[in-house]
Amino acid sequence: MTNVVKLFDTTLRDGTQGEGISLSVEDKIKIAGKLDTLGVQYIEGGWPGSNHKDIEFFNRVKELDLKNAKVTAFGSTRRKGIKAEEDMNLMRILETKVSVATIFGKSWDFHVHKAIQTSLEENLEMIYDSVKYLKNKGLEVIYDAEHFFDGYKNNTEYAIATIQKAEEAGADWIVLCDTNGGSLPHEISNIVSKVCGTLSTPIGIHTHNDCELAVANSLAAVEAGARQVQGTMNGLGERCGNANLISIIPNLQLKLKYECITEEQLAQLTNVSRYISEIANINMPVNQPYVGAAAFAHKGGIHVSAIMKHPKTYEHIVPELVGNKQRVLVSELAGQSNVLFKAQELDLDFNKESAQTKQIIEEIKTLEHQGYQFEGADASLELLLRKAFDKLDEIFTLESFKILVAKTKESPVASEAIVKLNVHGEIVYMAAEGAGPVNALDNAIRKALEKFYPDIKKMHLSDYKVRVIDEKDATAAKVRVLIESSDFKNTWSTVGVSENIIEASWQALVDSIRYGLIGKTKSNLEEEKQEILGLINH
Amino acid sequence: MTNVVKLFDTTLRDGTQGEGISLSVEDKIKIAGKLDTLGVQYIEGGWPGSNHKDIEFFNRVKELDLKNAKVTAFGSTRRKGIKAEEDMNLMRILETKVSVATIFGKSWDFHVHKAIQTSLEENLEMIYDSVKYLKNKGLEVIYDAEHFFDGYKNNTEYAIATIQKAEEAGADWIVLCDTNGGSLPHEISNIVSKVCGTLSTPIGIHTHNDCELAVANSLAAVEAGARQVQGTMNGLGERCGNANLISIIPNLQLKLKYECITEEQLAQLTNVSRYISEIANINMPVNQPYVGAAAFAHKGGIHVSAIMKHPKTYEHIVPELVGNKQRVLVSELAGQSNVLFKAQELDLDFNKESAQTKQIIEEIKTLEHQGYQFEGADASLELLLRKAFDKLDEIFTLESFKILVAKTKESPVASEAIVKLNVHGEIVYMAAEGAGPVNALDNAIRKALEKFYPDIKKMHLSDYKVRVIDEKDATAAKVRVLIESSDFKNTWSTVGVSENIIEASWQALVDSIRYGLIGKTKSNLEEEKQEILGLINH
Repeated sequence: MTNVVKLFDTTLRDGTQGEGISLSVEDKIKIAGKLDTLGVQYIEGGWPGSNHKDIEFFNRVKELDLKNAKVTAFGSTRRKGIKAEEDMNLMRILETKVSVATIFGKSWDFHVHKAIQTSLEENLEMIYDSVKYLKNKGLEVIYDAEHFFDGYKNNTEYAIATIQKAEEAGADWIVLCDTNGGSLPHEISNIVSKVCGTLSTPIGIHTHNDCELAVANSLAAVEAGARQVQGTMNGLGERCGNANLISIIPNLQLKLKYECITEEQLAQLTNVSRYISEIANINMPVNQPYVGAAAFAHKGGIHVSAIMKHPKTYEHIVPELVGNKQRVLVSELAGQSNVLFKAQELDLDFNKESAQTKQIIEEIKTLEHQGYQFEGADASLELLLRKAFDKLDEIFTLESFKILVAKTKESPVASEAIVKLNVHGEIVYMAAEGAGPVNALDNAIRKALEKFYPDIKKMHLSDYKVRVIDEKDATAAKVRVLIESSDFKNTWSTVGVSENIIEASWQALVDSIRYGLIGKTKSNLEEEKQEILGLINH
Repeated sequence: MTNVVKLFDTTLRDGTQGEGISLSVEDKIKIAGKLDTLGVQYIEGGWPGSNHKDIEFFNRVKELDLKNAKVTAFGSTRRKGIKAEEDMNLMRILETKVSVATIFGKSWDFHVHKAIQTSLEENLEMIYDSVKYLKNKGLEVIYDAEHFFDGYKNNTEYAIATIQKAEEAGADWIVLCDTNGGSLPHEISNIVSKVCGTLSTPIGIHTHNDCELAVANSLAAVEAGARQVQGTMNGLGERCGNANLISIIPNLQLKLKYECITEEQLAQLTNVSRYISEIANINMPVNQPYVGAAAFAHKGGIHVSAIMKHPKTYEHIVPELVGNKQRVLVSELAGQSNVLFKAQELDLDFNKESAQTKQIIEEIKTLEHQGYQFEGADASLELLLRKAFDKLDEIFTLESFKILVAKTKESPVASEAIVKLNVHGEIVYMAAEGAGPVNALDNAIRKALEKFYPDIKKMHLSDYKVRVIDEKDATAAKVRVLIESSDFKNTWSTVGVSENIIEASWQALVDSIRYGLIGKTKSNLEEEKQEILGLINH
C-alpha cells in the first residue's frame, strides 16, 4: 500500500461553521493561496448551493495560479423525489467549473428517518444518482459519508450499503466522517480497517474534535488504511472544531513517516498557521502544538538548564522542521540560566562573572520581586538587556501626559489624552480621544510619533491583559499589564507594573513601541511594507 | 482488573509551568477547593523544595476541609552523591506534613548522562534511596518515571530497571511519563501493556500535548492497564500543556465506562473548568471539548433544523451530563436555570409564564450577549432580579464624575476623582485621590456616602480583575471587570462591561456598594459594627 497521504483542507467550508468565524471572499482567496503554498492537495472552497459568497469565491479563485492544490466545491446528494439533473444544489457545483466535486450523503439510518425523513431505499438511490451524475459530467468525485461511524455502530449493513452505492456509481474517494465527533481511536481503527477490506475505492477520514481526539482519530484511520485526511487549519470548525491539519501533518510526516508535503513546505507550517489565524481574526492559543509561541518554550529552571546542555532533553522534535523556534521564558521558577539563554540569542557578550552581567541579573530579580513577569513579555526583557549593553536607541522621552475621563448621568464615559513628547530633541504636543483612558493615551502617542516613524500605524495592539498582583488591597493593589502587539509578521509582548493601572499601561505601551521600532528607519520600514503588501497580494 | 481509575491533578504544580500562568497562594487555595468538589483523588500542590510560595500553600491547605482529595507534594529523587536524609528537597516534602509524596526520577539513560551527569548505577540508587526513605517515614509514595517512553525506546532494559528499583523500594504507584509529549497512542499502548505485565505495582500515566495527542495517549494507557491518570484542568502546563483532565474524565466515564467520579461530580465539570480559567485569568477557548460555550452550539442551518427534530443528530452526548448546555444561535436561552435557581433562593415569585419573568430573562440574555457573565458575579445577578421584582432601594444616583490622571517626566502618575451624587435627594460633591483612576473614583464615592452610611468604611474591595473580551481590537475592545468585595462576614462579586475600563469599573463598583448596603440602615450597621469589634477583640 502506498505511504502517500493526501490532504484535504476544508477551512473555507467546514471551518467557517465555527463560532465567531466569518471570512470575506478576499480573506478566502488569501487563505487559498496560503494553503497552496503549504502543499495541500485539495482545497474545499465552499458550498455554492447554499451561499452566494461562495459562488463569487469560485469565480475569483480561478485567477490564482495554484501550484499544488485542486479546488473542490461542496454539496449534498440530490433532494428526495427528484432527478439529479433537476437538483439546484448539484447544478451549482457544476456551474463553479471545478474539476472536483465533494458531496455528502447519509450513512446513519436514524438520520435518514429523523433528519431527511425518507426511506432507506430512496437514500441509496440519492447517493447513486448524485455520484453517477457528477461522474458523467467528467468530475473527480469525493463522496463524504456523513455520520458513517455512528451509522456503522447502529446498523452496519446499511452503512456499508450506502458507501457501496457510492462505489458502484464511480466515486473516486469515499470519506468516512465522524460528524458528531463522538468516536474513539480504537473504534475508528476497527471500522476503517473493515471498510478498507470491503471496498476497493481509496478511503478518506473526516473527524471532529468533540472528545479532544480528532488528531488521534485521523492518525488511527491512516494507520488502518485511509489515504486522505480532511481537516482545517488550526482546527477551526463547528462546535469543538474539525481535525487540525496543522498537527496532523507533522505527526504523519515526522513521526509516522508518511509522505504528505515536501520538507520545504513543512517548514512553512508555523508561518501558515499564524497567517491564517490573523486573516480569520481568531486568536491562536500560545500553546498550540507544533506552531504555538509556547510550543518550544521552557520555563522551569531544571528544564532550561537541561536544554542548554542538549535541546533533545525536553523537545520532541527540532522546532525548525515546522518553522518554529525554541524560546526560554524567564520567571520566578527559573534561575539565571534563562537570562543567559536570552542574552546568547541576542548575541550579547554575557559573561557570568562580569559586573555588568551581575548588575542586570540583580535588576531583573528586583523587577520580578516587584511583580514584573518577563516570561510573557519577551520584548520587555530584550529591551532591558539591550539597554544594559548599550544596544538601544532612545525613540522618544516623555515630558508629560494628562488624561481626562468624564461621565454625567446623561452621557457615557468620554476619555481624552494629551501627551507632550521629546522626539530626538523636538517637542511634540498631541491630543486624542479613545474608547478608554489607555486607548486615548495609545492613540495620542501614535499620532505624535507618526511624523517621525510613518509606519508606526502598521503596528497594532492585539491583546491587553490586566492582573492584580496582590489582591489583599484591590483597587489600591499593584496591577500588572501585559500588552501583545503585532505587525503583519511578528508578535511581541511587553509588561508594566504599578499601583496605578495607567502607569503600568504606559510602561507596557512605551516598551511595545520601542521594541517595534528597533533597528527601524524610515527606509527599512518602507521596504518591509512593500514586502508585506506583496505577501498579501499573492 | 478493577475499572476504577484514579485522577491526579497537577494544575497547581505542572500547570503553573505554562506560559502566562501565575497563581497566588490565595488562587491555589481556591482551586484546591474546587478540585475537591469535582472529586479528583489527588491534588499535587506544588514543589516545596523549589518555591517558597508553595510552602505557604501547604500550610494553608490544611485549613480546607477536603472531602475527596489527598494533597501531595512534589520533588525529585535525592541529588547525586549524598544520602536521602541529607537531601534538602526531600526534607521540604516531609516538612509539608502531606500524607502523599510524588517524586520524579530519570528513566532515560540519555538524561542521566546529559542532564544530571551521573552514572546509570548511581541513578538507580538515587531512585531506590529516595522512595525507601519516604516510605520509611510512613508516606504514600507516587513515583513519576520522567521520560519513561523516550527511555524505553532508547534503552528498554535500563528504563525497566529504574522502575523496578522504585517497586523494590516500595512505591505505591509507578507513573510512566511522556515528558516531552512526543509519543503516539500505539507506542503508549504497547509500552504500558509490557510494563503492566512486568511489574505488580499499580501503573499511572502522565502525558503532554506536544502532538495534540495527550488525551488519546492517556486513554490508550488506561486501556492498556494504567489505573491513575495525571493531568491538569483545561490542559494548562508547560509548552503545549499537560493532558486535559476536563476531556479525559468524560471520555473515560461516559465513553469507556470506567469509574472516576460520581455523576453529580461530573455534572460540575463545566462549572469547574470555567471557574479555574477565571481564577488563572486564562481565556478559555469557546470551542473547548465538552465544556466550551460552543461545544454544543449549532450554527449551520441544516444542523439546527436537525437538532430541533432530535438533539442526537448532531450531539455526541447529552450536554447536561457534564453541566453544559445546547445553544442554538438563533434562539439562545442562556442561564435560565441559574436565574431560576437564584430567584428561588431569593424567594421571588418567579413564574416562567409571567410577563415579568420573561422580561428579566430577556434582559439577562441581552446582557450576556454583550459580554456580562453572571457565573462569577452573583451579587450583580441578585441586584438585577431584586430590581425586576421591586425589591431594591436606590442607594444613590450619579449626577456626574470626572477623573484626571497626570504624569510628568519628574513625577509618577497622580490620579484624582470628583463625584457628584444624588443621595436620597441631597446633592453631594466629593473629591479624592487614589493609587489609580478606579481607586480614586472608589475613594470619592465612599467618602460621599459616609455621612449617610457611616459603616461603608467597613466594606472593602478584595479583588479586582480585568479581562478583554474581544481581543481583536485590543485597547479599544470591550473589557469585563469583576470586583470582589467583602466586609468581615461576607464576600460578594459584581461585574461591569464596557469598551471603557472606567465605565466597566464604575458599573461593578456601584453594584458592589448597592449590594453591600442591601437591607442596611444606620442602626443595624451599628449593631454589626459592635459584633465585629467583639470578634476582633477576641
